[in-house]
Amino acid sequence: MTNYRIIVEYDGSRYDGWQKQGNTDQTIQGKIETVLERLCGQSVEVHGSGRTDAGVHALNQVANFHVDINKKGQEIMEYLNHYLPEDIRVKALDQVPERFHSRLNAQEKTYLYRIEMGEKKQVFDRKYIYGLHKSLDVEAMERAAALLCGEHDFKSFCSNRKMKKSTVRNLKKIEFEKEDTRLFVRFTGNGFLYNMVRILMGTLIEVGLKERRPEEMSGILKALDRQMAGYTVPPEGLFLESVNYLL
Amino acid sequence: MTNYRIIVEYDGSRYDGWQKQGNTDQTIQGKIETVLERLCGQSVEVHGSGRTDAGVHALNQVANFHVDINKKGQEIMEYLNHYLPEDIRVKALDQVPERFHSRLNAQEKTYLYRIEMGEKKQVFDRKYIYGLHKSLDVEAMERAAALLCGEHDFKSFCSNRKMKKSTVRNLKKIEFEKEDTRLFVRFTGNGFLYNMVRILMGTLIEVGLKERRPEEMSGILKALDRQMAGYTVPPEGLFLESVNYLL
Repeated sequence: MTNYRIIVEYDGSRYDGWQKQGNTDQTIQGKIETVLERLCGQSVEVHGSGRTDAGVHALNQVANFHVDINKKGQEIMEYLNHYLPEDIRVKALDQVPERFHSRLNAQEKTYLYRIEMGEKKQVFDRKYIYGLHKSLDVEAMERAAALLCGEHDFKSFCSNRKMKKSTVRNLKKIEFEKEDTRLFVRFTGNGFLYNMVRILMGTLIEVGLKERRPEEMSGILKALDRQMAGYTVPPEGLFLESVNYLL
Repeated sequence: MTNYRIIVEYDGSRYDGWQKQGNTDQTIQGKIETVLERLCGQSVEVHGSGRTDAGVHALNQVANFHVDINKKGQEIMEYLNHYLPEDIRVKALDQVPERFHSRLNAQEKTYLYRIEMGEKKQVFDRKYIYGLHKSLDVEAMERAAALLCGEHDFKSFCSNRKMKKSTVRNLKKIEFEKEDTRLFVRFTGNGFLYNMVRILMGTLIEVGLKERRPEEMSGILKALDRQMAGYTVPPEGLFLESVNYLL
């Protein structure tokens, strides 16, 4: 068996997220497995670096799978791109050591969230940006972000109430980039809880709208209560941008 | 009655083109008229500078309409943008002289056609570019384009066989712009026949693929026969970029 790592780009608009769900097959993982099974004539399990929610996009999702097949990497990649739907593309495919696991070995992930602050409706980009259409106090958001960074229990920023595992994560940085009326926010951390980026973003937006003060962040973290944090922003602005591994 | 001119941007993917068709309402013109009629409480006819086909986009379509309504331009524009679907946006609205007609007064139009020549599947841009995925000899295309420009009878480049009106048009210029593996082609003329830009583009692509020689263009024009010209490229790569009026 050979272990292959793939880097995948996808437009999540039409999908129920990355992770395969029972019999339904409107997931990215499911689509990739179906094509690989057709190629290999055997069942294949594709391990992603993590889930992305319904409607969330990826620029560089990382996944791996083990197959026993007498084909070159280039051929496998071309086969995948030929049979995958037009909104999923395999950007790279490499043979990796047997023990490589895209989720277990991931050290760090970066998510990008895109916001339109201007009045303008986004005609061509509407599925790839959150149309907030309100101006934001980015400096206040940066002050709030500084209080959220670091190793904390992020239970207040997790939608899954039944989460039994640890909700402690190291949020390494939150970076802001303004381009005209657009705001791009990047979240880098060693891992993210269910909906964590979207709740962090919603809370920061409430700060940017002056509905909350930056100083409130510490209290929200301490509360360990989802109700204390802000709203969950919609999925269309969110992109899994990169996953890093120690070499 | 006040005559208003609007500049409209739209993603044509979901529509049966600009022009209203009987009872169906999946057209840009139909969508705009419906919102205006709701605002004015009377039937309104919106005149576009010309049709765009099903699936074709516009960056700056120009249209005008006469209404008798006691509202400021800014209010009408906001109302339109609020009630129009998210893939149609009114970029500007101005009061114009009573006799202004967006189609009859148009002097010149520019269409943009976008082609991906590289192998890469276009995940996020796939509805806005033609995925040819073959390299093109742009110099040969430029030589062919030079022979097509000027005032000619473009009957060979018109899909409508029953066209009774003149098929003579002045194709003022065809410009090529290469950006990495993408080719952007702009067609400027005093008017375009049904499918004319898409047939010109398909014919030029056949030249770029060395399936035809540039010198064949003169013969195709002279033939006045649609069969002699190249294929009709798909609509997703086409944008109505601008419409010019003499002041």
